[in-house]
Amino acid sequence: MSYCYLNGSFLPTAEASLHLNDLGLLRGFAIFDYFRTYNGIPFRQELYLQRFINSAKLMGLEVPITIGGLTEIVAEVHQLSQRHDAAFRLLLTGGYTADSITPGIPNLAVMCEPLPAEVPARFAEGISIITADHLREMAEIKTTNYMKVILLAPQIKSAGAFDVLYHHQGEVSELSRSNFFIFKGDTLITPNANILFGITRRTTLELAGKHFRVEERPLLLEEVWSADEAFTTGTIKKVMPIVKIDDHLINKGVVGRRTQLLQNEFDRFAGLIG
Amino acid sequence: MSYCYLNGSFLPTAEASLHLNDLGLLRGFAIFDYFRTYNGIPFRQELYLQRFINSAKLMGLEVPITIGGLTEIVAEVHQLSQRHDAAFRLLLTGGYTADSITPGIPNLAVMCEPLPAEVPARFAEGISIITADHLREMAEIKTTNYMKVILLAPQIKSAGAFDVLYHHQGEVSELSRSNFFIFKGDTLITPNANILFGITRRTTLELAGKHFRVEERPLLLEEVWSADEAFTTGTIKKVMPIVKIDDHLINKGVVGRRTQLLQNEFDRFAGLIG
Repeated sequence: MSYCYLNGSFLPTAEASLHLNDLGLLRGFAIFDYFRTYNGIPFRQELYLQRFINSAKLMGLEVPITIGGLTEIVAEVHQLSQRHDAAFRLLLTGGYTADSITPGIPNLAVMCEPLPAEVPARFAEGISIITADHLREMAEIKTTNYMKVILLAPQIKSAGAFDVLYHHQGEVSELSRSNFFIFKGDTLITPNANILFGITRRTTLELAGKHFRVEERPLLLEEVWSADEAFTTGTIKKVMPIVKIDDHLINKGVVGRRTQLLQNEFDRFAGLIG
Repeated sequence: MSYCYLNGSFLPTAEASLHLNDLGLLRGFAIFDYFRTYNGIPFRQELYLQRFINSAKLMGLEVPITIGGLTEIVAEVHQLSQRHDAAFRLLLTGGYTADSITPGIPNLAVMCEPLPAEVPARFAEGISIITADHLREMAEIKTTNYMKVILLAPQIKSAGAFDVLYHHQGEVSELSRSNFFIFKGDTLITPNANILFGITRRTTLELAGKHFRVEERPLLLEEVWSADEAFTTGTIKKVMPIVKIDDHLINKGVVGRRTQLLQNEFDRFAGLIG
């Protein structure tokens, strides 16, 4: 059974609820974060918690607890849920509103969730994605606004694709819930604007610096079509190769050796391989 | 005490709640609508309910009920709440999600709320507003995404203003929760793109047609500065004069006679005056 923390109490997640006048529900005014364990230990937890606190600040929401306090809560919901490996979802809303628009005292939830099942072929053979013109509102804040990808889901599915790459006015930003990279030769390029700065993105850049020239800069969709390799990074996707974008095969549809090198580096860093 | 309907049950709104895995809460995937009574009778209810159904369709959400069924629910929460005049908030979310992103069976709530207190001076003397560069995502669907105005609230307040007018790349759209009109002489102009098509907007246009030339078209911010009169329309704002936008006085800061005429026409249509 999955447990959560909600405003001071620990309880089974299935029994936890918020009233209808929560501002996250009525007005989409909420931020969250999401991280996971490897070998039973939360991965780079402090970076995720710092990002959560930072998202809250950017939204003018007070987090009623310290990073140390959040760490203890995460440990407690983890232990109560009796999962070795797990994911954690933190949610902070604008609280209960008296007039349907003015924030109240924020509601804070910390949920322990099972990890999504992994599909090994996606890591070994890469995924297909589609593209869509879209600019996320305030992408650098981890808000709960994911309307676009939910609306695009049927289109992604009918294309036999796994996710969507957003671009706007010719410039690429990110996938619906993960960051985007390409290789041109031995140069690794990733967008640095209108994105959520992922912890896996950061980790990958740290690891890539030993092997490749790295460019964090605006990336044009035009450049993507001639990329030698492409991949996406995310908490669940880790380093996931992309072999097809719309109708364009990347590296003839085969996972490239540079991407494989980064996959190995990441898995080693996460303690998944020795 | 305020009552609501939630997924088949009638109960006091204060006792109603949704689980944490509701997609409206986790991913901002929800639509709503909001209307009110005049003299105890819901005003143009069918138009609001049709818009609600239409928003749901555009989001791919099935409304588990007909307009007739919704009408009965509204009547029931109205009667239970024992208010002569009241407002009604309908909320439809993506439902409980199993994987934090895929919609489930939609959750439907219908809440009866007290009407916000009216400030007569706002109608008689007009309001001040500020402007902000912002393009609402899918403005024509009444989603719950109101992050921007909640973030702007401190700025609106410190400017001594009442609301914000959005524009993008020189083109005006709407206020945070209401439509926007200007007069140039006897011509009434209102934007027709990137807006929510308000029922009060529609009503005002119907009433204005008898007196003025009406243009529904793209409106430039530049044109606004030289407007002879300006006003906003909304369910609660009705026809509310705007006499100051940023540092610009409109009509020397005085409510214009054409706006007053439309205020009177609207109040008569709503049954507020004989």
